[in-house]
Amino acid sequence: MDEDHAERILAELEDYQISHGSLLKIPRSLVDFESPVALARPVGVSIVPTIFPQPQFEQAQYIQRLFNELYINVAEDDIWLDTIIRPLARVDEFVAKLWSIWERVRDEGEIQHLRCGIFRSDYMLHCEPSTLGREATSDNDNDLRKGLIDSRLKQVEFNTYSCAGGTHATIVSNMHRYLARKGIHGATNLPMNNALRSITELLEEAHKAYLPTDRTRQTVILMTVQANNVNICDERPIEYALSECDPPILLYRVEFSDEVLRNCSLGPNHELLFQPPTRIQPFEVSVVYQRAGYDPQEYDEQGVEARFMLERSCAIKCPTILSHVAGLKKVQQELTRPGTLERFLNPESAAMLRPTFMPQYPIDQSEDGGKALQISSDREAAENYVLKPSLEGGGHNIFGQDIPDFLETIPSQEKNRYILMEKIHPPYSRGVLVSPLMISQGPVISELGILGACLWRRDEQRQEKVEIIKNSRGGWTFKTKPHEVEEMSVVKGYGCFDCPSLF
Amino acid sequence: MDEDHAERILAELEDYQISHGSLLKIPRSLVDFESPVALARPVGVSIVPTIFPQPQFEQAQYIQRLFNELYINVAEDDIWLDTIIRPLARVDEFVAKLWSIWERVRDEGEIQHLRCGIFRSDYMLHCEPSTLGREATSDNDNDLRKGLIDSRLKQVEFNTYSCAGGTHATIVSNMHRYLARKGIHGATNLPMNNALRSITELLEEAHKAYLPTDRTRQTVILMTVQANNVNICDERPIEYALSECDPPILLYRVEFSDEVLRNCSLGPNHELLFQPPTRIQPFEVSVVYQRAGYDPQEYDEQGVEARFMLERSCAIKCPTILSHVAGLKKVQQELTRPGTLERFLNPESAAMLRPTFMPQYPIDQSEDGGKALQISSDREAAENYVLKPSLEGGGHNIFGQDIPDFLETIPSQEKNRYILMEKIHPPYSRGVLVSPLMISQGPVISELGILGACLWRRDEQRQEKVEIIKNSRGGWTFKTKPHEVEEMSVVKGYGCFDCPSLF
Repeated sequence: MDEDHAERILAELEDYQISHGSLLKIPRSLVDFESPVALARPVGVSIVPTIFPQPQFEQAQYIQRLFNELYINVAEDDIWLDTIIRPLARVDEFVAKLWSIWERVRDEGEIQHLRCGIFRSDYMLHCEPSTLGREATSDNDNDLRKGLIDSRLKQVEFNTYSCAGGTHATIVSNMHRYLARKGIHGATNLPMNNALRSITELLEEAHKAYLPTDRTRQTVILMTVQANNVNICDERPIEYALSECDPPILLYRVEFSDEVLRNCSLGPNHELLFQPPTRIQPFEVSVVYQRAGYDPQEYDEQGVEARFMLERSCAIKCPTILSHVAGLKKVQQELTRPGTLERFLNPESAAMLRPTFMPQYPIDQSEDGGKALQISSDREAAENYVLKPSLEGGGHNIFGQDIPDFLETIPSQEKNRYILMEKIHPPYSRGVLVSPLMISQGPVISELGILGACLWRRDEQRQEKVEIIKNSRGGWTFKTKPHEVEEMSVVKGYGCFDCPSLF
Repeated sequence: MDEDHAERILAELEDYQISHGSLLKIPRSLVDFESPVALARPVGVSIVPTIFPQPQFEQAQYIQRLFNELYINVAEDDIWLDTIIRPLARVDEFVAKLWSIWERVRDEGEIQHLRCGIFRSDYMLHCEPSTLGREATSDNDNDLRKGLIDSRLKQVEFNTYSCAGGTHATIVSNMHRYLARKGIHGATNLPMNNALRSITELLEEAHKAYLPTDRTRQTVILMTVQANNVNICDERPIEYALSECDPPILLYRVEFSDEVLRNCSLGPNHELLFQPPTRIQPFEVSVVYQRAGYDPQEYDEQGVEARFMLERSCAIKCPTILSHVAGLKKVQQELTRPGTLERFLNPESAAMLRPTFMPQYPIDQSEDGGKALQISSDREAAENYVLKPSLEGGGHNIFGQDIPDFLETIPSQEKNRYILMEKIHPPYSRGVLVSPLMISQGPVISELGILGACLWRRDEQRQEKVEIIKNSRGGWTFKTKPHEVEEMSVVKGYGCFDCPSLF
């Protein structure tokens, strides 16, 4: 792409992004500019949509409802989860706190049996390293497409908690279809994205399914948020869209955990009451939508108490603490063990999902654990692996040859906190990206996330039976980064929101 | 309002504004922050809606269609306009250029007889200075409301060219109704605003009314814009909304005058052809929507040629050059002369509009001109007047006691460029504003603009008869500034978009 052309698209991009709130707030500390209100900058985006093979895109869409079902069933099987999480809790303080919150809720008896989940299954394309066409960096478009089309869809992780990106992805997909229609770029076959609408509709459905303990009280949705979040453009549009429902639904933001403790309380029937500073009467909370509470640092004593209050309340949780722990990497790894999927799904469904798993190992005393330890103590063997802690997101991973040295610093009993996963080797594509950090053109790697929107009820008699009320695909996210960057983080400026140009 | 409360509203405001594109671009020169794309900041807004009397708000709405009709008739009466504009053109280079463009078009013969106009009539409330309750700065809410309700609606100016603010006003009105619904502030009776939709619908109607000279050619709307405009959030949403029409309408931006000359040309039938750099075939332009070309500095030789090309083309102009000059302050002053309104309107309509006029005088050899010269040479008498040049906007006015000294610097024959207008004395209201420059709380002054959206056809036989196809109100703008500030400019950070809280 020549510079003139890139400049023209950039001018269109920045105006579209500024007009549509495809932005990040700028932390005041970063910028020397007097202003009583926050400044904003466009979030990183692709300048031209990156190509992606249509069959794999459709496959990911197709299996999403199976993954939703899998994780709903996992989240409601607290007996099985207990066998996985309890050992992990012994060596991982964060997991221990989450699990103890669950145990307190369980012992007290759950009041609310409706649950809500917004999930996101993340994928990359994968080639066997031997067949990986690094010639894709050449200018030969056919080589590049062949590398992509021959690759297989592999799951990076399954997110059950505080899944972000839906709004940004919706706007960027609209933007690229708009630019294509105007002939600003020539990208074709750009799929629609209903991520924002799906999230809003799910919350609306959950809100309407909630029966207030006191029918005279107005109900509202509560969104937990982190203080000083720069990514409000991903969260706020959900609030604004809910206010357009008929009748309008109010969503209030509370910072986790300070404001939760200050402004929320439990009523006599465990109804969650929210008292905004500007009102005399409290609201009753129908749904707690979690966009905070995923970082171990949020769980000091206050954080634990705040989360416990939310979990034991009769508000519908999006998601529950059981769904939260179901998203730990450790669970993902356990699900790859032969026979485990079949505990939760029929064999046909299990057979659809299994091919998307990369080989994964625990690091423990088991046979598989022994294999993992062997791999991870050998620099050459470790080269093809990633070591992942049981945390949200991908920011804490240890890659390849760094693994042996890193593991030596970890006391033996704590190694169980990690799982070892074979590296995904994505074929390169070519891309043009602009982020707050850079404009870059060259080999890129994309990550496809498929959102799921679910509402279900656990049988009140605590049978195994789960009644799934809504199990739907909820749009997608598509992020692209320069191939040499390890992290996909958009907020940090490496990853860019993108729209697949399907072929 | 206490600080805590203001802080809470501010957090809601900035998130709403950032998410909805209620923003200004930040000129790169102003900010020390490395970024390949532009940054943005929230446009100035009221923190709480400012009160405004409902009767005057409704009066302004009601008379808008009469003002539309008046200015349509003025714009099509080139004989009358010639008597006003030709003398002015002798002393005002800018007016001379505009008028000569019209003369060239007239002599060549107009091809397109459909015309489009987006107008905005600006008002302030006015009390006789003697009755002006400056006690409104007291905390007595009743005094303040009485001062407002007893005041009369007076027209500041009537804009016929490049009327801005419609999108910002729409978003800010939505924002304040949203905040009220959430109980963030307690403002009541906040009117809806359909400004953005009205502008879009008018352009859509004009676009559909255009008959391409070659039916195989795709037609598009052209928006002329100024280079490096920071106010894209007011313009771009019109483009995006048009793309949502069925069928979608494409609008392209061209910088006036460079890109107009570079990318536009006239076809054999005077069709305006627009050649975007990314396309092989040119588009045929249905409507030229002017958001540039109002500043005398834009009319170097190139600017004159660019404007001439647009005017002589068979694209529908929004507006034509005759509508443009109809918006000159000189015309506004001439319309206040006894009997003049009746040339253009029936007596009942004229009687509805006349009470909104402030006394205005030419500065020339006439009887009225003599009176004006007398006033403006006396510092004490001049105190109650404003001297206005025939330019767009309010940035070039000379106020009160500055008038005598200023007029002495002007050669006698050039004084005719100015008009003298009695000062409007708006009663104060109380307001809380936040702009890029300041947070302020105290006495404020508001300006109400009513938009008009019109489509009409001049009779092809050049009779006086004008066929008005569409004459509608088009929403409103409402801007508020601290009382001590002379300028209402939002882009400069003095004025703030606001939503009237009607009482």
